[in-house]
Amino acid sequence: MSALSEGLTQILIPLASLVGIGFAVLQWFLVSRVKLSSQDSSNGYKQKLIESDEEEEGINNLEISIKCTEIQHAISVGATSFLFTEYKYLGIFMCVFGAIIFLFLGSVKGFSTKSEPCTYSQGNTCKPALANAIFSTIAFLLGALTSVLSGYLGMKIATYANARTTLEARKGVGKAFITAFRSGAVMGFLLAANGLLVLYVSINLFKLYYGDDWEGLYESITGYGLGGSSMALFGRVGGGIYTKAADVGADLVGKVERNIPEDDPRNPAVIADNVGDNVGDIAGMGSDLFGSYAESSCAALFVASISSFGISHEFTAMSYPLLISSMGIVVCLITTLFATDLFEIKKVSDIEPSLKRQLLISTVLMTAGIAVVSFFALPSEFTLFNFGTEKEVKNWHLFFCVAIGLWAGLIIGYTTEYYTSNAYSPVQDVADACRTGAATNVIFGLALGYKSVIIPIFAIAIAIYVSFSLAAMYGIAVAALGMLSTIATGLAIDAYGPISDNAGGIAEMAGMSHKIRERTDALDAAGNTTAAIGKGFAIGSAALVSLALFGAYVSRAGIKTVDVLTPKAFIGLIIGAMLPYWFSAMTMKSVGSAALKMVEEVRRQFNTIPGLMEGRVKPDYANCVKISTDASLREMIPPGALVMLTPLIVGILFGVETLAGVLAGALVSGVQVAISASNTGGAWDNAKKYIEAEVSEHAKSLGPKGSECHKAAVIGDTIGDPLKDTSGPSLNILIKLMAVESLVFAPFFAAHGGFLFKFI
Amino acid sequence: MSALSEGLTQILIPLASLVGIGFAVLQWFLVSRVKLSSQDSSNGYKQKLIESDEEEEGINNLEISIKCTEIQHAISVGATSFLFTEYKYLGIFMCVFGAIIFLFLGSVKGFSTKSEPCTYSQGNTCKPALANAIFSTIAFLLGALTSVLSGYLGMKIATYANARTTLEARKGVGKAFITAFRSGAVMGFLLAANGLLVLYVSINLFKLYYGDDWEGLYESITGYGLGGSSMALFGRVGGGIYTKAADVGADLVGKVERNIPEDDPRNPAVIADNVGDNVGDIAGMGSDLFGSYAESSCAALFVASISSFGISHEFTAMSYPLLISSMGIVVCLITTLFATDLFEIKKVSDIEPSLKRQLLISTVLMTAGIAVVSFFALPSEFTLFNFGTEKEVKNWHLFFCVAIGLWAGLIIGYTTEYYTSNAYSPVQDVADACRTGAATNVIFGLALGYKSVIIPIFAIAIAIYVSFSLAAMYGIAVAALGMLSTIATGLAIDAYGPISDNAGGIAEMAGMSHKIRERTDALDAAGNTTAAIGKGFAIGSAALVSLALFGAYVSRAGIKTVDVLTPKAFIGLIIGAMLPYWFSAMTMKSVGSAALKMVEEVRRQFNTIPGLMEGRVKPDYANCVKISTDASLREMIPPGALVMLTPLIVGILFGVETLAGVLAGALVSGVQVAISASNTGGAWDNAKKYIEAEVSEHAKSLGPKGSECHKAAVIGDTIGDPLKDTSGPSLNILIKLMAVESLVFAPFFAAHGGFLFKFI
Repeated sequence: MSALSEGLTQILIPLASLVGIGFAVLQWFLVSRVKLSSQDSSNGYKQKLIESDEEEEGINNLEISIKCTEIQHAISVGATSFLFTEYKYLGIFMCVFGAIIFLFLGSVKGFSTKSEPCTYSQGNTCKPALANAIFSTIAFLLGALTSVLSGYLGMKIATYANARTTLEARKGVGKAFITAFRSGAVMGFLLAANGLLVLYVSINLFKLYYGDDWEGLYESITGYGLGGSSMALFGRVGGGIYTKAADVGADLVGKVERNIPEDDPRNPAVIADNVGDNVGDIAGMGSDLFGSYAESSCAALFVASISSFGISHEFTAMSYPLLISSMGIVVCLITTLFATDLFEIKKVSDIEPSLKRQLLISTVLMTAGIAVVSFFALPSEFTLFNFGTEKEVKNWHLFFCVAIGLWAGLIIGYTTEYYTSNAYSPVQDVADACRTGAATNVIFGLALGYKSVIIPIFAIAIAIYVSFSLAAMYGIAVAALGMLSTIATGLAIDAYGPISDNAGGIAEMAGMSHKIRERTDALDAAGNTTAAIGKGFAIGSAALVSLALFGAYVSRAGIKTVDVLTPKAFIGLIIGAMLPYWFSAMTMKSVGSAALKMVEEVRRQFNTIPGLMEGRVKPDYANCVKISTDASLREMIPPGALVMLTPLIVGILFGVETLAGVLAGALVSGVQVAISASNTGGAWDNAKKYIEAEVSEHAKSLGPKGSECHKAAVIGDTIGDPLKDTSGPSLNILIKLMAVESLVFAPFFAAHGGFLFKFI
Repeated sequence: MSALSEGLTQILIPLASLVGIGFAVLQWFLVSRVKLSSQDSSNGYKQKLIESDEEEEGINNLEISIKCTEIQHAISVGATSFLFTEYKYLGIFMCVFGAIIFLFLGSVKGFSTKSEPCTYSQGNTCKPALANAIFSTIAFLLGALTSVLSGYLGMKIATYANARTTLEARKGVGKAFITAFRSGAVMGFLLAANGLLVLYVSINLFKLYYGDDWEGLYESITGYGLGGSSMALFGRVGGGIYTKAADVGADLVGKVERNIPEDDPRNPAVIADNVGDNVGDIAGMGSDLFGSYAESSCAALFVASISSFGISHEFTAMSYPLLISSMGIVVCLITTLFATDLFEIKKVSDIEPSLKRQLLISTVLMTAGIAVVSFFALPSEFTLFNFGTEKEVKNWHLFFCVAIGLWAGLIIGYTTEYYTSNAYSPVQDVADACRTGAATNVIFGLALGYKSVIIPIFAIAIAIYVSFSLAAMYGIAVAALGMLSTIATGLAIDAYGPISDNAGGIAEMAGMSHKIRERTDALDAAGNTTAAIGKGFAIGSAALVSLALFGAYVSRAGIKTVDVLTPKAFIGLIIGAMLPYWFSAMTMKSVGSAALKMVEEVRRQFNTIPGLMEGRVKPDYANCVKISTDASLREMIPPGALVMLTPLIVGILFGVETLAGVLAGALVSGVQVAISASNTGGAWDNAKKYIEAEVSEHAKSLGPKGSECHKAAVIGDTIGDPLKDTSGPSLNILIKLMAVESLVFAPFFAAHGGFLFKFI
C-alpha cells in the first residue's frame, strides 16, 4: 500500500493545480502593473501613460507609448480574429471526429448496452463497450476544449505582454526581461495547472459512472489525449503556415528587395508577421505541449489501470502520474522565483545563462521531488502488465524511470542550445560559411541539423532502455511525464521567445531608438535559442510519449509481438518512416505557396501605393493578414487529413500489426526529421543574428547588415523559417497523434480491422 | 527436379558472361572508330585528325580536335592518378579488414580445424568454422578487387569517350548520342558480365574444397558481397567529395563571382570538376551497383543453400539467381540495339524518350526472360526456410517475386524521372519559385524531394509484401535481383550522363561554337535525369538488397523474431534511423569544407595570376586537383569508419537483437533520406538548366542566364550538388554494407556478442 492516503491525494492534486493557477494570476497582475497608454489595451488607447519616476530616454515620450499600444492592439485583434476563425473550423472537425469516435467504438460490440467480462481484471464485470464509446467521446471533447483554451490564453497573455516588454526596455534590459519572462510564466503555469485540473476532475466525474471498472474508466480517459493532440495538430500546422507565410513574404520583399529593416512599419506584411508569432509559436506551442502532457498522463494511467495496483484499486498509486505533475507545478514555482526575484539581469550577457539556469534548477529540484512522490505514492512493490507477461517492479525503479526522462530532457535542451546558440562554434561556422554565399551557408546549416540529432537520439535511447527495462511500458510513459514534469518552466522560457521577438517588432514599428531595439534584439536572440530548446523538449517528449502510447495501443489491441520479420509489420515500418516526409512536403510547399502570394501582395502595395516607401502612407495590413489567414486555413487540411486518416485507413484495411509498424516507423523517422529541421532553422536564424549583432571580431568581419555575407545569411534564415516553425514542430504531433488515435480506436481495429488482408 | 540439367547450367552461365564481355568489347571498338587527333589519347596528340567525309561546321578544324584531345588527356590522367592514390589507401584497408574477418570468424570455434555438424542440413557434417573464415576472407578480397576493377574500367571508358562525344556532336546530336550511349553500354556490360563471371568461377573453385557442404560454401561466398560494397563505400564517398568539392568551388567563384560560364577553361577548378565526374559519378556508381548486384546474388544464394533444393544439392535450382543475371545480360543486349541500331536520334527532343524507352523495353523483355528461367531452372515445388518454420513454394511464385522487383524498379525509375526532369511540372514549379529568390527555390526543392519518396516507398513496400508473402526472405532477395537484372541497361543510361556532361565541358574548354555546346547541353540535361533514374534504381535495389541481407543475417544469427516491443530492438531501431543523418552530416560538412578551400584557391589564382581572366595565361589546374584529392582521401575516413564500425561495435557490445534493430532502422530511414536528397538535387540542377535552355515561354520569362532568377537557381543547384552526388548515393551503401557486414560476422556476434548487456 502507498504511504499517502487516498484522501490526501484527493486534496493534494487539486490544491497543486489551484496554486499553479493562483501563481499564474499573480504573475499576470505583476505584468499588468506596467501601464500602457490606456487602462485596457483592447478598449482603445485614450488614457495617458502613467509616468514613472525613472529618468531614462524616452520614458516620458507619450507618443511612443501610444504608438506601442496601437500596434499591440492591432496584433491582438489580428490574432484573436484568426484564432476565432480557426476555432470555427476546428469546432466542425471536433463534432465530426467526435461522432466518428462514438460510432467506431460503439460498433465494437454492436452498440450493445450489456456489461461484459473484464479483459485484465479477471472474474469481474466491466461496463459495456457503448459506455466506453460515449465517455471516450466526452473525454475527446474535453481534451480538445482544454487544448484550445491553452492556446488561446497563451496568445492573450503574449499579446498583452509584448508592448509592455517594449516599454520596459526603455528602463533597461533587466526590466524588459522580467516582463517577458513573467508573461511566459503565466502561460506555463496556466497550461500545466489547467491541464492537470481538468484531467483530475474528469477522472473523478467519470468514476461516478464507472465505479470499480477502472479498465473502462482509464480506457475512455485516453480520449482526452486524443482531443488535446488533434487540436494541437491544427494549431501547429495552421499557425505555422500563417506565421511563416507572413514572415517569409515580409522578409523577401522588405529585407531583400527593398532593403528596409525587419519589422519596418512600411512593410505591409509586418502585422501579419507579428500576429503569426502569437498564433503559431505561442498558441500552437501551447496546444502542442499540452497535448504531450495530456497524452503521457493518459498513457501512464491506462497502463497503470491494468497493473496490480490498478486491479486492486489503489487510488494513490494509480494517481502517481498526476502527483508527479502536481509536484512539478510546485517545483517550477520555486524555480521561477530564481529568475524573477532572486537574481537580477543587469546586462545583455546575463540573459541566456539565466534562462539556462532555469532548466538546471528545475531539473535538480524536480529530481528530489520525484523521489518524494515515488516513495510516498507508490507501494514498495507491485506488478505491471508487460505484453502478456507480468513484471515485478519496486517503487525506486519508477523513481529512476521518471528521473531519467527528466534528465534526458535537460540533455536534449542543452544539446539544442549548443547547436543553435550563436555563442558556440556550430552556429559561428554556419555564419562563416556565408562568406562564400548562400549555397555554402545552406550546406553547412543542413549538415549542422543532421549532426544535432546524434546526442538527443542517444539520450532518448538510453532513457527508453532504462525505463523499459525497469518498468516496461509504464516506465516509458512516466519517463515522458518526467520530461514534461517541468513543463511550466519549459513553457515559460519558450513563450518568452516570441514575446521578446514581438517586443522588438513593436520597438521598430513605433520608431524607438536604436538602443531600445538593441536590447530587444538581445532578448530575442536568447529567445531564439530558448525557442529551439522548447522545440527540443517538445520533440523529445513526443518521442517518449508516442512510444508509451504505442505500447498502450499494442496492449489494448491484444498484440503480443511486433516482429519486423513479418511482411505486414515491415511494410508498415517503411511506410511509417515515409510519412514524416510526405507531411513535410505538404507543409513546406504550403508555406512556399502562401509566401509567394504574400510576396506578390507586398510588392503590389509597394508599387501601387504612392508614398508608402517614404513612410507617409500606411500600408494595407489587413490584406496581408487575410492572405495568411486564408492560406493557413486552406492548407492545414491536407496535412491534417494525412495524420488523422492514416491510422484509420491502415487499421481498417491492413489491421493492427501493420498499424503497429506504421507507428514505430513514423516515430523513429519523424523524430530525426523534426530535430534536424528545428535545429537547422534555429541555427540559420542565429547565424544571421550573429552577423547583425557584430559582438566579436569574427562577427564584424562578416557584417555589417546589408553586406554580401549578411544577405546570404538572410537567405538561410528564410529557408529555415518553415523548417523550424512549421514542418519540424508539426512532426511531433504527427507521431504522437497517430499513436493516440490508434490507441483510442484499438478495440475497433482489433474487432473489425485488417479487412484487405482478410480479403486476399 | 529442374528441367534444365546441371551440365547445361554450367555452360549457360559462363557463356552469357562471355557474350556480355564480347558485346562490351564490340561497343568499345565502335566508339574507338571515332578518331581523335592521335591514335592513342594517352600517348600524346601528334597525329592528325582522320578527316571524315561529312561537311558540317568545324569538323575539319584540326586545332579544335587537338584541344579536345589535350583536355581529355588531362582529365584521364587526373582521374587515373586519383584512383590509384585512392586504391593505395583501399589496399591497406582491404588487408586490415580481411585480417579482421579472418580473426573474428576464425575465433567463433577457437580456430579449431575439426569438422562440425551442419546447422540446417541435419545429420550431415560440415566444414570447420576456420575454413569459413579463410574462404570468407578470400571471397571478400575477390569482391573488393572486382569492385575496384569495375570502377576503374568504367572510368577508363568514360574518359576515353568524352572527347569523342564532343567531336561527334559536330556532326549532329544523333551521332553524339550514340557515342555516349555506346560508351555507357561498355561499362554496363563489362560490369554485369564480369561480376557474374567472377562469382560463378569462385563458387566452382570453392566447391572443390567444400564438396557437399553447401551451407559453408554459400556462407563464405557472402564475403564477396561485403568486399564489393566496402570498396563501393569509399568509392562513392571519396569520389563524391572529390567531385562536389571541385564542382561547388568552381561554380561559386566562376559562375557567381566572376560571371564566366560553367566549364570555362579560365576557371582553375575546371579540370578537377571534370575529373570528379569520372571518379565520382562513374567509378563510384559502378562500384555501388556492382556491390548491390553482388550482395543480392549472395543473399539469394545463402538463403537458397538452406532451402530444400539447397539441402538436396540441386545445382541448377541453386543457381537460379545466376541464371536470372545471365538472362539479364542477353535481354539488355537486345535492348541496347534498340537505342543504337533500330531507332535513330534525329533531334534533341528524341533523346529523353529514347533513354526512357530503354528502361521499358528491357523491363518487358526481361519479364518474359524471368518466366523462362523460372520455369526451366526451378523444381515445380520446393520448401524454403522461414525463420524457424518451413514454407512451401511453387516455381511460378518465384516468377512473381523477381518480376515485381523488376517492375518496382521501373516505377521508381519513372517516378524519379517525373520529379527531376524539367519536362514536368514539379521541376518547373521549382524553377518558378526562383522568381522570389533562392530561399523559395530551396523551400520548393526540399518539398519536392520529400514528396518524391511517396511513390517509390509504396512500390518498394508492395514488392516487399508480395515477394515476402510468396517466398519469405528468398523472395525479397530475388526481387532485388529482379530489379538489378537489367543492370547493364541501367548502367548504360546512367553512365551516359556524366559522359555527356564531360563532353559539354570539353566543348566549352575547347572553345567550340555555341551550337555544339547546345547539343551537348541537351545530351547533358537528359543525362541529369537518367543519372537521377540510376540513383533511384540504386536506392530501390539497395533497400530490397539490404532487407534480403537482413533476413539472411537474422537466419544466420539464429534470431527468431525482431520484436520492436523489446527495449533491445527498439533502441537499435531508433539509433539505426539516426545513422543516415550522422553520416550525411559528415559528408555534407566534408564537401562544404573542401569547397571553401577550393573557393579560396580559385579566388587566389584569379587575383594573383595576371592575364588569367583575359584567357592569356593558363591557370594552375594541378593545385585544384590536389585540393580535391587531399580532401576526398582525408574526409572519406570518418564516414567510412562510421559505417564499417557500427555493426562491429553494436554486435559486440549489444548483441544480435539490437543489431537487427539498427539494420531495420537504418534501412527504413536511410532510404527516405537517400531518395529525397537525390531528387531534390536533381530537380535543382534541372530547374537551372530549364531556365538556361529557354525552350518555353515560361522558361524565357525566368531567364536568361545571369538574371536574378537564374542566380537563385544556381544557388539551388550548388546546394543540391552534395545532396545528390555525395550524401544521397552514399546512403545506399550505408544501408547495404551494414547489413552484409552483419551477415558475414553473424556467427561471431551470435557466439561472443552482446557483451555489455551480459555485463549489466
